Amino acid sequence: MTAQRPPSDAWHLRFEGFDPAEEGVREVLCAIGNGRLVSRAAAPESCADGVHYPGTYLAGVYDRARSVVGGRRVENEDLVNCPNWQSFSFRHPDGEWFTGPPAEQRLDLDLRRGVLTRHGLVVDADGRRTRLVQRRIASQAQPHLVALETELLAENWSGLLEVRSALDGTVENTGVARYLGLTSRHLVPTGQGVDEDGALWLEVATVGTPLHIALAARTRAAPTEVHRASEVRDGWAAELLTLDLTEGRPVTVEKTVAVYTSRDPAIEAPLPAARRLTAQAPDFEHLLREHAMRWAELWRRCRIEADFDSELALHLNLFHLLQTYSEHSVDLDVGIPARGLHGEGYRGHVFWDELFVLRLLNLRFPELARAVLDHRRRRLDAARQAAREAGLCGAMYPWQSASDGREESQQLHLNPLSGRWRPDRSHLQRHVGSAVAYNVWQHFQATGDLDFLATSGAEMLLEIARFWSSLAAYDPERSRYSIRGVLGPDEYHDAYPWAEGPGLDDNAYTNVLASWVLARALDTVDLLPEYRRDELLERLAIDRTELDRWQEVGRHLHVPFHDGVISQFAGYERLAELDWAAYRGRYPDLRRLDRILEAEGDSVNRYKASKQADVLMLCYLFSSRELRGLLRRLGYPAGPELLRRTTDYYLHRTVHGSTLSAVVHAWVLTRTDRRRSWRFFRDALNSDLLDLQHGTTAEGVHLGAMAGAVDLLQRCYTGLEIREDTLWLAPRLPSSLGRLELDLRYRGHWGVRIAVDRHTATVSLRESRQPPIRVAVRGSTTAIGPGEIRTFSL
Amino acid sequence: MTAQRPPSDAWHLRFEGFDPAEEGVREVLCAIGNGRLVSRAAAPESCADGVHYPGTYLAGVYDRARSVVGGRRVENEDLVNCPNWQSFSFRHPDGEWFTGPPAEQRLDLDLRRGVLTRHGLVVDADGRRTRLVQRRIASQAQPHLVALETELLAENWSGLLEVRSALDGTVENTGVARYLGLTSRHLVPTGQGVDEDGALWLEVATVGTPLHIALAARTRAAPTEVHRASEVRDGWAAELLTLDLTEGRPVTVEKTVAVYTSRDPAIEAPLPAARRLTAQAPDFEHLLREHAMRWAELWRRCRIEADFDSELALHLNLFHLLQTYSEHSVDLDVGIPARGLHGEGYRGHVFWDELFVLRLLNLRFPELARAVLDHRRRRLDAARQAAREAGLCGAMYPWQSASDGREESQQLHLNPLSGRWRPDRSHLQRHVGSAVAYNVWQHFQATGDLDFLATSGAEMLLEIARFWSSLAAYDPERSRYSIRGVLGPDEYHDAYPWAEGPGLDDNAYTNVLASWVLARALDTVDLLPEYRRDELLERLAIDRTELDRWQEVGRHLHVPFHDGVISQFAGYERLAELDWAAYRGRYPDLRRLDRILEAEGDSVNRYKASKQADVLMLCYLFSSRELRGLLRRLGYPAGPELLRRTTDYYLHRTVHGSTLSAVVHAWVLTRTDRRRSWRFFRDALNSDLLDLQHGTTAEGVHLGAMAGAVDLLQRCYTGLEIREDTLWLAPRLPSSLGRLELDLRYRGHWGVRIAVDRHTATVSLRESRQPPIRVAVRGSTTAIGPGEIRTFSL
Repeated sequence: MTAQRPPSDAWHLRFEGFDPAEEGVREVLCAIGNGRLVSRAAAPESCADGVHYPGTYLAGVYDRARSVVGGRRVENEDLVNCPNWQSFSFRHPDGEWFTGPPAEQRLDLDLRRGVLTRHGLVVDADGRRTRLVQRRIASQAQPHLVALETELLAENWSGLLEVRSALDGTVENTGVARYLGLTSRHLVPTGQGVDEDGALWLEVATVGTPLHIALAARTRAAPTEVHRASEVRDGWAAELLTLDLTEGRPVTVEKTVAVYTSRDPAIEAPLPAARRLTAQAPDFEHLLREHAMRWAELWRRCRIEADFDSELALHLNLFHLLQTYSEHSVDLDVGIPARGLHGEGYRGHVFWDELFVLRLLNLRFPELARAVLDHRRRRLDAARQAAREAGLCGAMYPWQSASDGREESQQLHLNPLSGRWRPDRSHLQRHVGSAVAYNVWQHFQATGDLDFLATSGAEMLLEIARFWSSLAAYDPERSRYSIRGVLGPDEYHDAYPWAEGPGLDDNAYTNVLASWVLARALDTVDLLPEYRRDELLERLAIDRTELDRWQEVGRHLHVPFHDGVISQFAGYERLAELDWAAYRGRYPDLRRLDRILEAEGDSVNRYKASKQADVLMLCYLFSSRELRGLLRRLGYPAGPELLRRTTDYYLHRTVHGSTLSAVVHAWVLTRTDRRRSWRFFRDALNSDLLDLQHGTTAEGVHLGAMAGAVDLLQRCYTGLEIREDTLWLAPRLPSSLGRLELDLRYRGHWGVRIAVDRHTATVSLRESRQPPIRVAVRGSTTAIGPGEIRTFSL
Repeated sequence: MTAQRPPSDAWHLRFEGFDPAEEGVREVLCAIGNGRLVSRAAAPESCADGVHYPGTYLAGVYDRARSVVGGRRVENEDLVNCPNWQSFSFRHPDGEWFTGPPAEQRLDLDLRRGVLTRHGLVVDADGRRTRLVQRRIASQAQPHLVALETELLAENWSGLLEVRSALDGTVENTGVARYLGLTSRHLVPTGQGVDEDGALWLEVATVGTPLHIALAARTRAAPTEVHRASEVRDGWAAELLTLDLTEGRPVTVEKTVAVYTSRDPAIEAPLPAARRLTAQAPDFEHLLREHAMRWAELWRRCRIEADFDSELALHLNLFHLLQTYSEHSVDLDVGIPARGLHGEGYRGHVFWDELFVLRLLNLRFPELARAVLDHRRRRLDAARQAAREAGLCGAMYPWQSASDGREESQQLHLNPLSGRWRPDRSHLQRHVGSAVAYNVWQHFQATGDLDFLATSGAEMLLEIARFWSSLAAYDPERSRYSIRGVLGPDEYHDAYPWAEGPGLDDNAYTNVLASWVLARALDTVDLLPEYRRDELLERLAIDRTELDRWQEVGRHLHVPFHDGVISQFAGYERLAELDWAAYRGRYPDLRRLDRILEAEGDSVNRYKASKQADVLMLCYLFSSRELRGLLRRLGYPAGPELLRRTTDYYLHRTVHGSTLSAVVHAWVLTRTDRRRSWRFFRDALNSDLLDLQHGTTAEGVHLGAMAGAVDLLQRCYTGLEIREDTLWLAPRLPSSLGRLELDLRYRGHWGVRIAVDRHTATVSLRESRQPPIRVAVRGSTTAIGPGEIRTFSL
């Protein structure tokens, strides 16, 4: 599917017409949110056929769903679809409620101001033509407020029109077709009504938990309102406004809705808070003004000026990131869900996507990055318990998690091609803990905040290091340590074809990263103020012997090699080569090669074929220089050719079944094949905009890939690194990129501008009272102070 | 009442015997807590007569109580008494449940390890003597766990004993006698039971809100357990264990309880979380070990070595502070309640006590201070709304607040002496906002964390400055700005005797502090990084004109004077002198002079008599030098004699009706009357230990005074100040204090040791990677780096 949106520009995403096949993608791409809740755009009943229910997801609101999957009863926490606040319809007094689709329709998502506008034309059976222009916002200024303004214009008639503005608590999770057999009803209405002043209210509770969600709404249509009635039933409250329309004279209806949950801080209870806020809320124009000002602020903070042709995708990706996680997320104790808050895919679970997202946040909104890390810190005890239950030490972070930090990975998954439920072993991806440790360290590097490390970050980092140390087993034959029975990010490989049990040994990505974690843990111990070091080591009962073991394990983890390249895992060389030509001929798309082979009675485990080449992820996390240093520290010769050969090797054996794959490949090819790298980059950047994963965008955006693609601009083409208290630059723009300019926050400096073109790199600092920063351009280091501008020739 | 506790020492508070008159105080002083919940010690039904119910209060758990007060229906948020987890009793199979009091009883609160031990002897009608030793902890290591270990010894009998271990949700708020007419039932049981593995569980909801509290308990008495039964009814779940006791052989029963509320982060729901934790919990000895290690950590952080005779009070005060607010409070979004979590006095509301508490926390646990400030930040919108509703700009923080940051001050109060309900105007204490601003600034000074100021502190500080600027009205006659219709901290004066309306004009404390706030707001604007300054001023719509007004108002607020002293408020000189001699003769205690006069048909508003001399509070907040600077900036000559004369003047007219008064008076007399200062200091320090407010300790400790008294040691006798990026010292030990040693955290340095004796001051820094700090001793400034020790002669 290629989306029809000819009139889109860098700041506006536009859709015209109505195409049921495209609706799901449209819903997600035109979502509006503020880091607390995200509303998918699709049609309230006034403008569409209701195929896709308009979902609004609240950050951190989960319900424990008890489902029967593959014949087994399983429990999982599901992101809950919030009551529908957008419900809005109308009818002629003698007619039916309009249910769409409209005769004409146009959607316009204004990324710069965070406004979704719908232009529609409705023609009834009697030929009465009514135009509507509907604007919708999720306020970035007042995070509990969302608003819908509808302008109605009777084109060729005059008379009464009845408008229905409702709150609907009967919503279900039906956003993912293959989950339809699972529990979809998560909300129980606990009350609804219309107050004397005409304010609607609705309260629901999630099924399994005492979590309440309350909405209150105010609808105003002065001065043409002639009559007002209400309609209340279980889980539904509506106001019916009768308006007197005159041909050619537009009338505006404003609906302002406050949303609170019982997990929101600084309230007594959600319902009174929602009612009070609705009563106080300013009018739509005021709300829009302050909302747009906040978006302007966000865009200034995220300023990335790139002279290229994919600005819309760049803006769209940042827009979705900022909708999912903003300053309004900070107090909510929420992590980064893999699919944003844009759909029910992956049930709203948190995976490792923050590894990609925090690269952007650390350098723009370190408070938000800190909040993501705090989310992990609050679940450190759960990770410790998981390690204990596995007979290990330290902290074992779960591959998928939700509210309470326990493992939420599915135990079975369905292959739609074969109709079979198969065991799911993805929870063996232990590398997720290293991602947490990596993010801790990056945050420290970006902020220089030693107090963060001392009071929060170090404890996580040390416990994760301890986990690796306890999982690694000494192999006397090799005189090396092995990490066995795990999965790398390449989920195609979850077992050896010749083995009974699940998991693989010595996944290179896992082991190299574990070695890095052990090294940074030791650095952290050194960096801590002496007083705190003593305190923390006592608290965690870490002694010299244990630190020595970290040193020993960290330097002697096994990394497998074959054919002069790094092996994805030990024994990879024993796998068969896939007959790529045959399969490419037989199937138009090999992204779900795992399903294809399973349906054929075969298994992808047998082949040298990857969903994503996880060895190469190392090149995303570390510069080539740093990575080679890591390998050498492990005692492996790592010449400049090794990474190039390894890249080539896997590039031919990867189907890019993960959206992250394009990000990684763009990265690894930057220095060797710039044209191909650029193609991968554009694929990554446009992945959701063009729904390159064929329909998966409708189940939610791919936040890691969205952020990772932007991070390519930020880090890959500038060579930006933050390590050793220094900001490193080694720019190398692709030919399609004439110029690149970024504004960053770094170590207390706000608005650090980095401008790169083909010949120069310029770094400038705004005025402040912060000490100078160290900048290294192509290896030579200099200090730049507040108010200074420094240009380097390349 | 002077408490009988001869065997107490510096680290142990001990009570012997059973004195119903003393029980309330004992409950509070022997409370155990961990910053998340605090259990008053008094007797579970096994050991006392049940006069005082054993309250356990959970930080931040409020219920909106709707009560009839003085004939009017009012609403208030009340701290909720948590279900009773301590319930434990026993009986002989043929006898009654023991309900106390025991024949002998001894309580021992081990402050160093946070353990409360009760030794008791129970003799039944048949002369069977059973000794019990009960140890109780609220874990500082695992904040959701509390535990009760009971050792039972049959002294002169053998046979069966039935033990009842219960969770009781039928508790009420009955801790304050004069509130008994108000709503006391806040909890509704929502479920209870006994699991198959013998774990009890109980869940309740607060009446007005969807807040749930769940407890799960495990009771173990192996190997003497011979039978186990349970008893479940609405709001009550108990296990009945039959034990086989042998004369002279002690048997131990361990009860471990997990407590969660639906506001706790990182859980799915409180009940499953509590059950899971109870199942995983280690045994009592393990819990005690890790708990004691955390307390050791806390005591190291709070190390204050003073060579004097009130060490028990010093430790008790710190102990209660650390029980109320600890690292476990940080994620709970709670403020500092005036009475700790130790009683129902003031309904758990937050006033201004953090002004006293944060002086200690900023220099030991800046994360905790930050959490208190975050609690205020989350209520900034509520403060803005309050200002708006009053027709003002900026943020008007409430005098009393609870969950949602709205004003919770009572509208009426009862004079028990006259039986009359009178209007309560204490909410006119607008100075509470200045306390918030002051704390923001102090936190910044203590940590040097400009990012805190930029992203969090500045917005509060600027909005509070804006509030003062909007409240101040220009008086052309005086060419000065006036702040009218407010109350100072001295609540005796809430109106002029000659005026109709409430409030006073130009309270000196309020105005000088407002002037300081306006100055610091302007400093803050200067300090912010240019980028963030522009952003924040745009966001708050603050322009040059407004900043100019802050400058103008801040330099021209009116401060009234009379008789060569600062007037408490404008017109103070027109008040009558009280016949102190006559009143002192007539009443043994004048602390509630307001009630005495009201009962006589008079009003304290008519007299020059203060509950606390609020002018003098300025000397607590500012050094004499800084304060005189502030007055001079306002254009008032302020010679060195002014403050001494002012002190003398009010000292004769103050009844010390507030526990804070002694703190302030100890302060102001340090330099002029050291002996008297020391007496005030000891009064302040011992205020709760000796219940010097005659019975008010039973309603909860006085956290501001407790912390303020410790702060006297910290700041007053050392002359410690943190301002202008410098740590100032000007030690002057009272004669009763030979030596004083403090460990602090300051600007990223941990364990900064300050040792002062009569001749020298020594500052030493532990090893770290932080830059040196600036230290000024008696005016001369020097830099001290990590690992350095510097001694200064005095």
